[in-house]
Amino acid sequence: MSDLSAMDLYEKLTAQGDTVRALKAQKSPKADVDAAVQLLLQMKLDYRRVSGQDYKAGCPPVDGEMLEDHGAAPEDGDDQVDPWSVSSSSAKGVDYDKLIVRFGSSKIDQELVDRIARVTGKTPHRFLRRGVFFSHRDMHQILDAFEKQKSFYLYTGRGPSSEAMHVGHLIPFIFTKWLQDVFDVPLVIQMTDDEKYLWKDLSLDECHRYAVENARDIIACGFDVNKTFIFSDLDYMGASPAFYRNVVKVQKHVTFNQVKGIFGFTDSDCIGKISFPAIQAAPSFSSSFPQIFGERTDVQCLIPCAIDQDPYFRMTRDVAPRIGYPKPALLHSTFFPALQGAQTKMSASEANSSIFLTDSAKQIKNKINKHAFSGGKDTVEEHRKCGGNPDMDVSFMYLSFFLEDDDQLEKIRQQRRAAHRRTEEVFDRDAAAHDRRAPGETQTRDGRDRAAVHEPSQTTLQLLETHRSTFIIIIILTLLCWRLIKLRPPVTNK
Amino acid sequence: MSDLSAMDLYEKLTAQGDTVRALKAQKSPKADVDAAVQLLLQMKLDYRRVSGQDYKAGCPPVDGEMLEDHGAAPEDGDDQVDPWSVSSSSAKGVDYDKLIVRFGSSKIDQELVDRIARVTGKTPHRFLRRGVFFSHRDMHQILDAFEKQKSFYLYTGRGPSSEAMHVGHLIPFIFTKWLQDVFDVPLVIQMTDDEKYLWKDLSLDECHRYAVENARDIIACGFDVNKTFIFSDLDYMGASPAFYRNVVKVQKHVTFNQVKGIFGFTDSDCIGKISFPAIQAAPSFSSSFPQIFGERTDVQCLIPCAIDQDPYFRMTRDVAPRIGYPKPALLHSTFFPALQGAQTKMSASEANSSIFLTDSAKQIKNKINKHAFSGGKDTVEEHRKCGGNPDMDVSFMYLSFFLEDDDQLEKIRQQRRAAHRRTEEVFDRDAAAHDRRAPGETQTRDGRDRAAVHEPSQTTLQLLETHRSTFIIIIILTLLCWRLIKLRPPVTNK
Repeated sequence: MSDLSAMDLYEKLTAQGDTVRALKAQKSPKADVDAAVQLLLQMKLDYRRVSGQDYKAGCPPVDGEMLEDHGAAPEDGDDQVDPWSVSSSSAKGVDYDKLIVRFGSSKIDQELVDRIARVTGKTPHRFLRRGVFFSHRDMHQILDAFEKQKSFYLYTGRGPSSEAMHVGHLIPFIFTKWLQDVFDVPLVIQMTDDEKYLWKDLSLDECHRYAVENARDIIACGFDVNKTFIFSDLDYMGASPAFYRNVVKVQKHVTFNQVKGIFGFTDSDCIGKISFPAIQAAPSFSSSFPQIFGERTDVQCLIPCAIDQDPYFRMTRDVAPRIGYPKPALLHSTFFPALQGAQTKMSASEANSSIFLTDSAKQIKNKINKHAFSGGKDTVEEHRKCGGNPDMDVSFMYLSFFLEDDDQLEKIRQQRRAAHRRTEEVFDRDAAAHDRRAPGETQTRDGRDRAAVHEPSQTTLQLLETHRSTFIIIIILTLLCWRLIKLRPPVTNK
Repeated sequence: MSDLSAMDLYEKLTAQGDTVRALKAQKSPKADVDAAVQLLLQMKLDYRRVSGQDYKAGCPPVDGEMLEDHGAAPEDGDDQVDPWSVSSSSAKGVDYDKLIVRFGSSKIDQELVDRIARVTGKTPHRFLRRGVFFSHRDMHQILDAFEKQKSFYLYTGRGPSSEAMHVGHLIPFIFTKWLQDVFDVPLVIQMTDDEKYLWKDLSLDECHRYAVENARDIIACGFDVNKTFIFSDLDYMGASPAFYRNVVKVQKHVTFNQVKGIFGFTDSDCIGKISFPAIQAAPSFSSSFPQIFGERTDVQCLIPCAIDQDPYFRMTRDVAPRIGYPKPALLHSTFFPALQGAQTKMSASEANSSIFLTDSAKQIKNKINKHAFSGGKDTVEEHRKCGGNPDMDVSFMYLSFFLEDDDQLEKIRQQRRAAHRRTEEVFDRDAAAHDRRAPGETQTRDGRDRAAVHEPSQTTLQLLETHRSTFIIIIILTLLCWRLIKLRPPVTNK
């Protein structure tokens, strides 16, 4: 049995467990049950030897050869990061260094950023300079090959769950556009309208309409029209036997146990959700696009995406060598924070958390003034401890995503720190007033007090106004450009 | 019992099920067990009448029609009948009456056969006259609508797991061809090459090649070329967005729990198997074929198939009303027995159990002479008890599938019975010789004795020769016709 992989042994063990249970349920002769149990125990020993782990039903091996990318299981207090939910208990947002360890990916360090600059001959994108794209898998391999004149292609995507995209959705597209410019490579963009139909209470037609609508916003990023293929799953699955063949190949090589372990699916989930990961995996293989790559099945794929999509591609990288394809490489971005702060990402289903590409300048201004978390805290103590950090000020965070000029950004950061020190004085006065209250009053009026502290004082507001205006102007300009470009006829797949 | 509520009946049924299991566990006399089983079956019929649902252990009666098609769970000693395995402990083969109760379908009785004759103005096909198609769902509804000039369409299929089809595979196609002739309706034939890829150790290309190869044999049945659409899943999924949309619709409305219950999938099964049932379901809806039905989504479907495919369509009928489509109607056939007898169906993976459409006349003759079970039994006693029944003689069974002339078939049946009586005399002599053996010798030579009894004696062989030749001639003629027709260029989907 020594030539079996950990995953093979895991599958056999699971099956043997089922056999033992069945024998017991059927009240089979004791000798039969004992023999089956003996075999089970022997298989557990083999599994341990090969995988270096104890067998646990429902938990596929994490260190086997096929699963080299799988990180450790999340622990209590870890940030929640999966394709359907992102949250952190820290106002600074998700601990990305910890996530790299948990997901088993590699940090994008200065050396890699410098190498990208060297290979492309271009200044690295601000998302690389500022750690917005912070983690990768096999990026050095892509660069090695590129230096030897071996090309690759880019793949990213969007789940079209609403008519309007928000600024957070643009992050992978803005970066992908830069990658396409500097490497001059083909790009495929998957609109997973089938996924949204399976997960949301929407009709197929609605999901497809959102896909077309969102594609217009994506086109407005300015991709090379001769090297970019945008497709809706609902359309392309029914238009490309090559794509369906790759979907079925992946589906044959992934078990329910595996998707249960990776995505947390349960027995109550519909079979569409359970098999969907294969559809997000298939565009990672160049043979899914014979219209672009001809008969080449070995063109490597580079996937820029938010880190919450990594589970799909851990699975894809598991499967790739087993079906004779190269593993896709990845570049992972951090999340774009909600207006309410970095504990959650901006979400289209929470209108007040998001700035939509369809919002008017006035709406944006109102949303920021009303909802943007400025670093003010619930209590004076907390505010003292964490408040002065521009990394927690949502307006400043947004600027760091969109403002190209590093010097100007640093200048604003310094001003912001100075402003905070002045704010602290205001808080000190507030705190003194607070201390003069009658005992017990704090408790009963706690809600109002909290609101008062959270609402920035007049002084703070004035000080912030400058930066907020800078930010709003950038957003408005961007949005206006978008709107203008959207008037061009959209290039969707037929 | 008619004034009992569904819940009363459910509880009594559950108790009776316990009684039957207890009797079996105690190895009680056969007569007692049989009586208890008879009562159980009667109670199931009562329960169904009162509750409108099939009894399912552990599932008390519920309001709602979602569960109307679900059959009862198999019990110990029941025949095994599912899409991947068919077996019975009886030499007469599967107990089809019991299967009707278990699956919750309806018997094709004389009244229905007569009605089909009346509506079509044609003599019912021998498969209807002889109970080869023995069970149905909603066939009266199809006929009601047909009488009101409302048409329907036929859907059947084939899982192409080998290059050569065997005669058993032809049963649904021969009957479907007759249905198409007498009703003059469109027909779609699904070649589930994707399914075979998922279940077997075959490559996608092999499965696709088998689909094309098998399609030629199917075309040779002589379907109306203007009203028949044969498709490979691997091709059609990648050519029809309408088909994929229906697949996703079904996938959204079926959970893993459901397919686990219906098909017995486990957590170790690949996600392709788990979601496949939706692909076999989708052709039951006319909107999967806009090239045939335009925008009509309400054309009802009639599915002629072997009873082992019923689980797919029980699921389909559950889902249909929830996604706004009519439920497909069904006509179920019995299985075509293996050469070794009716305990199992003819199987392409057991070369010696099957007569292939590619076998030569000589090969067929050899296979029948060497492997066809003639009703001879392992022991003289068993042979006495069961042997003379032409229903257990494989050669005679095959004749009853293929010989059109009812009178001639009856004549052969009578000759066969007479022959058996003469065979018994031979066995009496064998038995006398057997009894003269030294004590203990029977045990040690048991294997050889068995073979000797199983191998028909010279007298029996001579008597059988006539019928076997008749059968071989029919098969050979049929096969020759096939081979000739196959030389015509095949009409496959592009």
